[in-house]
Amino acid sequence: MTESGKTPIDFYFDFSSPYGYLMAEKIDAVAAKHGRKVKWHPILLGVIFQATGSRPPADGVSSKGIYMLHDFQRSARFLGVPYNPPSRFPLPTQNAARAYYWLHAQDCALARQFALAVYRGFFVDDLDISAPETVLEIAAKLGVDRNSLAAALQNPEIKAKLKAQCETALQVGVFGSPHVIIDGEAFFGADRLPQIERWLASGGF
Amino acid sequence: MTESGKTPIDFYFDFSSPYGYLMAEKIDAVAAKHGRKVKWHPILLGVIFQATGSRPPADGVSSKGIYMLHDFQRSARFLGVPYNPPSRFPLPTQNAARAYYWLHAQDCALARQFALAVYRGFFVDDLDISAPETVLEIAAKLGVDRNSLAAALQNPEIKAKLKAQCETALQVGVFGSPHVIIDGEAFFGADRLPQIERWLASGGF
Repeated sequence: MTESGKTPIDFYFDFSSPYGYLMAEKIDAVAAKHGRKVKWHPILLGVIFQATGSRPPADGVSSKGIYMLHDFQRSARFLGVPYNPPSRFPLPTQNAARAYYWLHAQDCALARQFALAVYRGFFVDDLDISAPETVLEIAAKLGVDRNSLAAALQNPEIKAKLKAQCETALQVGVFGSPHVIIDGEAFFGADRLPQIERWLASGGF
Repeated sequence: MTESGKTPIDFYFDFSSPYGYLMAEKIDAVAAKHGRKVKWHPILLGVIFQATGSRPPADGVSSKGIYMLHDFQRSARFLGVPYNPPSRFPLPTQNAARAYYWLHAQDCALARQFALAVYRGFFVDDLDISAPETVLEIAAKLGVDRNSLAAALQNPEIKAKLKAQCETALQVGVFGSPHVIIDGEAFFGADRLPQIERWLASGGF
């Protein structure tokens, strides 16, 4: 059932965010159950953290950092999502995000497939998704022309598009990944999925 | 059903922690369903944050701080727990924690009742639980002798007991509140309740 009168859900995420990956594997199906579509917005957590004064949560050294590396895996098992800890973490993700927006301007569905392939490449197959070559390879497997995409990664308009998305994210209060907004109501973290489900089912609680 | 062979669950919390309060209202019942008891450990987040370099999450000013004040209330509604945002927040909680340990040495069940009364006093009735007078009042309503407790709040042994609990918490990796440990497996945050339930039901996942 789709109820086309309803506004789409906004989903902000960084391709290097483990909880963003978990949300990416779930949010479309959860939304669809309640007749909602999801707008995906890859952003750069580096930009968000710099602007908000936040820090990356998982440093792998502090008690909290060690806990989180463990919790990523446990939360993935809990949600039934495949997860292999990446050997390079975190990574810069501007190439993947730029590729997303370039693809999205041409084919929304393809951009969605690409985003999931990037996430799975990083969190299942341990690919170095920061490298342009990896991004091109992932896209090529989906039938995208390598040369066109390689040019797009350097296109000032595409760079500006990603920058604008990060600025919009800051304006709507995004401070981390994943950050989901439903009719103005914000939900931060993959662990808010049960609240998101109830919110969609009941129109608030 | 109780299975006395099982080790108790450890529950670390600060009396000023909203998510600690939510966990406090749930953890005993969840544990009991699986034949487990819970050891409550009030600690001081100030000590933990100083040692770990963490910061209080909800400043009420940043995007994240504003979000969290909102999420406290929404999470309480989600879990069906009464919650009124305290007018003084956060608060120093050493008096409540010292009172807890003094009571606990005499009567575990009474100490548990007292802990819940402190939490409800703070997060439902907006009491200033940092004040010794408030702590004495809450205890007196449970039949505790005011003068004995007033003396205990200044007792060096009780102060040392709380300090030792904070040190133990740091040693076992506690970095925030609530922090629940089941057979060596750590769960941070009230939003880990579903994972705790599955862990208890299946002995890990």
